[in-house]
Amino acid sequence: MNSLQFTAETSSDGVLERDFTLGDIPGVLWSPASGADRAPLVLMGHGGGTHKKWPAMTGRAHRLVTGCGFHVACIDAPGHGDRPRTAHDEREIAALYRAREAGEPEGPIVVRYNAHLAERAVPEWQATLDALQELPEIGAGGPVGYFGLNMGTAIGVPLTAVEPRITAAVFGLHWPDVLAGPAKQISIPIAFMLQWDDEHIPRESGLALFDAFASKEKTLHANAGRHKELPRFESDSAAHFFARHLVRAVGSPA
Amino acid sequence: MNSLQFTAETSSDGVLERDFTLGDIPGVLWSPASGADRAPLVLMGHGGGTHKKWPAMTGRAHRLVTGCGFHVACIDAPGHGDRPRTAHDEREIAALYRAREAGEPEGPIVVRYNAHLAERAVPEWQATLDALQELPEIGAGGPVGYFGLNMGTAIGVPLTAVEPRITAAVFGLHWPDVLAGPAKQISIPIAFMLQWDDEHIPRESGLALFDAFASKEKTLHANAGRHKELPRFESDSAAHFFARHLVRAVGSPA
Repeated sequence: MNSLQFTAETSSDGVLERDFTLGDIPGVLWSPASGADRAPLVLMGHGGGTHKKWPAMTGRAHRLVTGCGFHVACIDAPGHGDRPRTAHDEREIAALYRAREAGEPEGPIVVRYNAHLAERAVPEWQATLDALQELPEIGAGGPVGYFGLNMGTAIGVPLTAVEPRITAAVFGLHWPDVLAGPAKQISIPIAFMLQWDDEHIPRESGLALFDAFASKEKTLHANAGRHKELPRFESDSAAHFFARHLVRAVGSPA
Repeated sequence: MNSLQFTAETSSDGVLERDFTLGDIPGVLWSPASGADRAPLVLMGHGGGTHKKWPAMTGRAHRLVTGCGFHVACIDAPGHGDRPRTAHDEREIAALYRAREAGEPEGPIVVRYNAHLAERAVPEWQATLDALQELPEIGAGGPVGYFGLNMGTAIGVPLTAVEPRITAAVFGLHWPDVLAGPAKQISIPIAFMLQWDDEHIPRESGLALFDAFASKEKTLHANAGRHKELPRFESDSAAHFFARHLVRAVGSPA
């Protein structure tokens, strides 16, 4: 396995942002500019059609770095951001656009395509976590969280089901079809975001995925509004959640 | 109408606690010991079988006073705390204990009795709010929140439906039977707490009550666990909710 190579570095508002590659996977690592030795690490999965530096990603990363002192990492998912699309990717994206234009439900295509992407992405995330934990400022054995909605949940749920290093996770905004199975294998604390008036994901489907997690400690945040109207304040509640679970894990009060 | 009479005063951990009476209603007002001129006011409704200074009440009050700088008031509900029980109260409480001992569902009795108590309590809360707003440190026209679960929701929902001075509310842990009607008249921002494994309130019933609110801005917090296992951190999320809605209402950032 390749090791992680830093390719660019900038700093703003107290956040050090370092682009990296791991083989052909492009990623970004945000850290406190003041240094953060062995601070908790949050892996962040972006949504479908976006990329590692989408505004929602950089916003959440800055919140977690400056508010909690964490490291935050995001990689481009297969076929997203700076990565090439395969013929399979192109076919599925075309099918999704056709369904949207025809006013047909996009759920079946998104569920199927996200499951395919997750198969490619899970080993990439595991290799990325290996490489990140080789960095002296992160190290092995520290607390690791995962935060991803939409496609970030489609990838994060099967990842968390097989990855014991992840000890707390924020998921949401996805159908249960493919994910309820791996969710039943997950027993770490989770927070789950759902939009009460989601025009794509039926309410019962979102509730069924939340219900599937085996976690004794799980919290559902359901907000009035459509699929893309997740309130901004849920970034704060995710930060509170990770502060509670990742900071306590190393023995300090949240 | 009588005016509010302070009967006792103590101070600890930065919180001034003043007992009061308004006619035959006993109450308590918690305020920042450092003074809080025209700060927002949160009305807090206690649960069934408890009283205005139950540990959950004083804990939440201290959190809101020291964390947000608010005034917080709680009054004993009819038949609770320092207040006499009527023959009707005694009959319903006896019926509830009989149902519990027989292992029968307590929902039907609680729903019926709470509806009765709410009819007595709503005008008491309105008179209390009138009197509190005559205090110079609170004043008229400032932001007012309501925070009550269980019986506190049974009283708070019909109160909020008829009381335009309340501009944000936290409810939860109740059946929808009597409350869905007034909930449909409520359009202020609300947060709603529900226990995912509640042994008394079926999950669908709790979700139906959340669904009934007409509010464009509403958030459901559903936590794994039984009826009495609401996680302590939900006091913090309620405080964040009130800070967002009551502090912004007077023009300062939350």
